[in-house]
Amino acid sequence: MNLKTIIWKNNRISIIDQTRLPTKLEYLHIDDLKTLWQAIKQLRVRGAPVLAAAAALGVFLGIKDSPAKTYRNFQKELHRVIDYIASSRPTAINLFWGLERMAKTAKINQQRPIKEIKKILLAEAKKIIKEDMSNCRRMAENGADLIKQNDKILTICNTGVLATTDYGTALGVIYRAKAQGKKVSVFACETRPLLQGSRLTAWELKRKGIKVTLICDSMAATIMKNGLVDKVFVGADRIAGNGDTANKVGTYNLAVLANFHRIPFYVIAPLSSFDPTLKTGKVIPIEQRSAKEVTELFFKQPIAPKGVRVYNPAFDITPCQLISAIVTEKGIIRPPYRKNIMALFNSR
Amino acid sequence: MNLKTIIWKNNRISIIDQTRLPTKLEYLHIDDLKTLWQAIKQLRVRGAPVLAAAAALGVFLGIKDSPAKTYRNFQKELHRVIDYIASSRPTAINLFWGLERMAKTAKINQQRPIKEIKKILLAEAKKIIKEDMSNCRRMAENGADLIKQNDKILTICNTGVLATTDYGTALGVIYRAKAQGKKVSVFACETRPLLQGSRLTAWELKRKGIKVTLICDSMAATIMKNGLVDKVFVGADRIAGNGDTANKVGTYNLAVLANFHRIPFYVIAPLSSFDPTLKTGKVIPIEQRSAKEVTELFFKQPIAPKGVRVYNPAFDITPCQLISAIVTEKGIIRPPYRKNIMALFNSR
Repeated sequence: MNLKTIIWKNNRISIIDQTRLPTKLEYLHIDDLKTLWQAIKQLRVRGAPVLAAAAALGVFLGIKDSPAKTYRNFQKELHRVIDYIASSRPTAINLFWGLERMAKTAKINQQRPIKEIKKILLAEAKKIIKEDMSNCRRMAENGADLIKQNDKILTICNTGVLATTDYGTALGVIYRAKAQGKKVSVFACETRPLLQGSRLTAWELKRKGIKVTLICDSMAATIMKNGLVDKVFVGADRIAGNGDTANKVGTYNLAVLANFHRIPFYVIAPLSSFDPTLKTGKVIPIEQRSAKEVTELFFKQPIAPKGVRVYNPAFDITPCQLISAIVTEKGIIRPPYRKNIMALFNSR
Repeated sequence: MNLKTIIWKNNRISIIDQTRLPTKLEYLHIDDLKTLWQAIKQLRVRGAPVLAAAAALGVFLGIKDSPAKTYRNFQKELHRVIDYIASSRPTAINLFWGLERMAKTAKINQQRPIKEIKKILLAEAKKIIKEDMSNCRRMAENGADLIKQNDKILTICNTGVLATTDYGTALGVIYRAKAQGKKVSVFACETRPLLQGSRLTAWELKRKGIKVTLICDSMAATIMKNGLVDKVFVGADRIAGNGDTANKVGTYNLAVLANFHRIPFYVIAPLSSFDPTLKTGKVIPIEQRSAKEVTELFFKQPIAPKGVRVYNPAFDITPCQLISAIVTEKGIIRPPYRKNIMALFNSR
């Protein structure tokens, strides 16, 4: 298997439509910005790291046919495109990171002809993808040291190939451990409401030949108590300067449970998921999503009384005190997080 | 509204078919034992207290047309019926408690004519229902003292009218508090895999005019952290002699979270849910249910890859250390539980 979650080909973005999995593996070909925006919003493409790539390619898609003759006009258009893509989802910092890199690249090259700037922007988007692929491998290598023979690992949401441009973050670590010859097994939380765990992670791990057992999110406590979990590995959508981590709702739940059962809890994320400008996780914006995600199955079959009030945050914040370590492409960060995160950023 | 979850009428058991809620409120009329067994197994009727009533009425249903002329023959048939009903679900002790009461009643009256024993058994089943109704009111009265004006209460599964013969256990307490003029609001965990929270609890509370907000089970931690939960109220399927409590899977999860966030955690259950012969919760049998409950929505739409391994325990065990108090019809039990449970049982 050599799945590619996102590719640029024939002047369009092709993504695996993750809302069709696990029943169908289909690519969605995107050649306009509105379709991309919707694909991000509807989670056809999702996962913090891959959103950087989707955003960057989206910028090129949005400006490649720009008729602008001057940089001033081109820049106006560029920022309209960037602002539009930025409005799709608020929590994963990688999206904004990808957009900002594209904006900077354009600015640095503003003296060049527009045609050339466009080429440079496409090259930059492709570079972001390549970097993510290489970062995933490095995170996996760094994180695999944390895994021992026969480890039973609990995870949530999807942090694998489908969440990145290749290999993954938390799942990447597991893939690497397996490649090193370690026997590992995984419990996948189904991850309500949108079931990324059952639809994507269980599917991905099964394809990769890794033993996976699916549980409902509410069963994590009981499997920990029964000694079935050695470690918890999760991804991140945004990490504040003190290590507080926003990730798929239910992650904080697992962190509290892991703490109670004295099970190590690891976050795996590239540096592009960090937002060192934020002092703590309290200021990370949390995306509230449609009640229908909870009250209807796939927006079709009602499973709750009509009109019921729903609270549906897509993410929660895990305070740094509950995190044993954060694995990045530059190495493993341990407490004290603020100091060690700053050190890593300053050493870039 | 005056819903009756279970009634005996026209020589048959009528139950609200809880698998049809919230879209349809329909009664299922049962006049044979196999249909009753399936209705219990498939959770068309569910909830620990109501299972005592269903079991007791089931015993009568099973022996009412017995051709036995001698008590010896009648008893054989009676025990065949009891063993069959007992094989439906293993965890909720109330089911066995109801069956045992019927067996004892028959035995005490063995000198009477079979026809009369049958009448007595029906009367006993009806008495179990009446007692449950009265116990629910007493639990509600005792538990309502724990609720303060404006309390925000978190609950799991369904512990209301639909789980009992009337009013409920944990939800009964909330109904009583409301009747006392207290303003309360409820967060209902949807309760995967079978969604008793969204399908039944949200439906019931909405009908009763109580403010209810639905969440996914994985969101409990984040609402606790955000200060949205003052107390947790749950039911029980079996309580060991030391207070360890088996209840719907996810309950132990909430207990750990409540402990971490210093939120009181209350169990509401009638004495028929206690099994004082069990030293601890470790020996309570936990029903493992079909993988399809997790991998398919309502056994129809696949939401996980075909053939994936699933762990699907219907219940988990909350250790007594995490329980602030247990509310029964005879009063509130607080630690030390073993001593205080025994005292209550000996005072019966």
